[in-house]
Amino acid sequence: MTWRRVTIVGLGLIGGSMGLALKRAATRGTLADLTVVGWDQHAETRELALARNVVDRAPGDLGRAVGDAEIVIVAVPVLGTRDVFAAIAPFLRPSTIVTDVASTKALVCGWAQELLPCPFVGGHPMAGSERGGVTNARDNLFDGATYCLTPDEDTSPATLETVSGLVEAVGARPRIMQPEAHDRAVAAISHLPFLLSTLLVELPAASPDWEEFRAIAATGFRDVSRLASGDPRMHHDICITNAAAIRPWLVATARALEGLADGLEDSPALLKRFEEAKAIRDEMIAGQPSASP
Amino acid sequence: MTWRRVTIVGLGLIGGSMGLALKRAATRGTLADLTVVGWDQHAETRELALARNVVDRAPGDLGRAVGDAEIVIVAVPVLGTRDVFAAIAPFLRPSTIVTDVASTKALVCGWAQELLPCPFVGGHPMAGSERGGVTNARDNLFDGATYCLTPDEDTSPATLETVSGLVEAVGARPRIMQPEAHDRAVAAISHLPFLLSTLLVELPAASPDWEEFRAIAATGFRDVSRLASGDPRMHHDICITNAAAIRPWLVATARALEGLADGLEDSPALLKRFEEAKAIRDEMIAGQPSASP
Repeated sequence: MTWRRVTIVGLGLIGGSMGLALKRAATRGTLADLTVVGWDQHAETRELALARNVVDRAPGDLGRAVGDAEIVIVAVPVLGTRDVFAAIAPFLRPSTIVTDVASTKALVCGWAQELLPCPFVGGHPMAGSERGGVTNARDNLFDGATYCLTPDEDTSPATLETVSGLVEAVGARPRIMQPEAHDRAVAAISHLPFLLSTLLVELPAASPDWEEFRAIAATGFRDVSRLASGDPRMHHDICITNAAAIRPWLVATARALEGLADGLEDSPALLKRFEEAKAIRDEMIAGQPSASP
Repeated sequence: MTWRRVTIVGLGLIGGSMGLALKRAATRGTLADLTVVGWDQHAETRELALARNVVDRAPGDLGRAVGDAEIVIVAVPVLGTRDVFAAIAPFLRPSTIVTDVASTKALVCGWAQELLPCPFVGGHPMAGSERGGVTNARDNLFDGATYCLTPDEDTSPATLETVSGLVEAVGARPRIMQPEAHDRAVAAISHLPFLLSTLLVELPAASPDWEEFRAIAATGFRDVSRLASGDPRMHHDICITNAAAIRPWLVATARALEGLADGLEDSPALLKRFEEAKAIRDEMIAGQPSASP
């Protein structure tokens, strides 16, 4: 299916970057005659999005924004997704395809089945930045990134092909997963890192020596704590909607830390452990397309 | 005191970068007539250092390398420092000043008192890279970095001034600390981040779903796990020599993870917590001179 009318609901970092990446594809001739419509609950954000040329039109009326779309991309925090589905449902045609970008998928896919009158394919681009908002949106945010898609048993091959085409148009690589498998995987590879990042700021900051600590913090601390600067609301929604998958990782990490505390002077075991972790990470990074140090 | 003969013992990333940074200062006219001599136990490393112009001379004989120096910089892993002190001691003059770059300071300062026949000021540049070795050395590694110095009660103002001048010559900012206070601070701000980074690789990698995890890992995981790619031997030595200061942080983090696991659906508390951590980290990063995202 070819498509030329896309509507993005929610013009934050991800929604805004989807707009810019789609318009980049249109400029390059990949998508002919594309119109990107945007909607956001904040008038100021809609105006910013228009000013930055993130979207072609940004009507204030949600029904008017989605009514004409062939594809609707819902790009709001996870816990806002259900309300958006309910709000747009009356305006969608049976042929419209809806997708989203939320960080957890099982709940969202359930809401879509419950509320939407048209096909839905869950989506999750594995890209982002701790600097959120439409002002930080960029057309290359998804370049080379993995973009998870979670079709269900009712998804037709044509629908999946359309959404995969959308993903490729913004520069990303589609990866088909079950919603529950997706949620388990991001718990380990995305949600656990965020929570460790946050603890790494929280704990030293609670010490009376914090001023001394921050005076000597170097790039290592800055990198490991980077995710703690992410959007609190987004991460809150992630924890709430993926608690069951995240919890075992927190407990396992706590156990591992206790083991490490006990074995901190076990010289041969420690060296072996650090060598193995380094080998795993080095190999992992070497295999990534857009590897930075 | 002016000085023009510096010897660096150990030509890895830090030793090599010290050489390049000192030679950069000489080129800029900050240090007139400077000669940088280097020594490393590996002949290949000495040759690489000469080829990269990291040092002016690199004799194979340690006594000859240090005998003529006004300042000797010992840049080997913590647990190798004691042996180097013992090996160079017979060749040092009472007027020589020795400093080091090791990541923990209390033990090293004790060894210096025990073994060296001349003034010693412990040093620790808060800079580095997970890419070690003289081949990754660069002249700007220390630019803008905090560089801890740990003089003791016997250190004369003239000696401290000389070592501070050395630190400034390589582009860093000296920060005077007690050795024990230094070790407590780096446990929180450097050693804990490394260990969390390592666990973050170890734990998911032990899962049967690891291939799925790594396929969707994004920049967030890459950043938070970066320190796990650091030098295993260096981090091993750090844990062994600073276990007493690191252990309470590991235990505190384990407790915090358990608390988080219990409170993962406590919506208001979670949001407040993430907002506070973000505010602390944003404020911290904003205050850093060489801030990258």
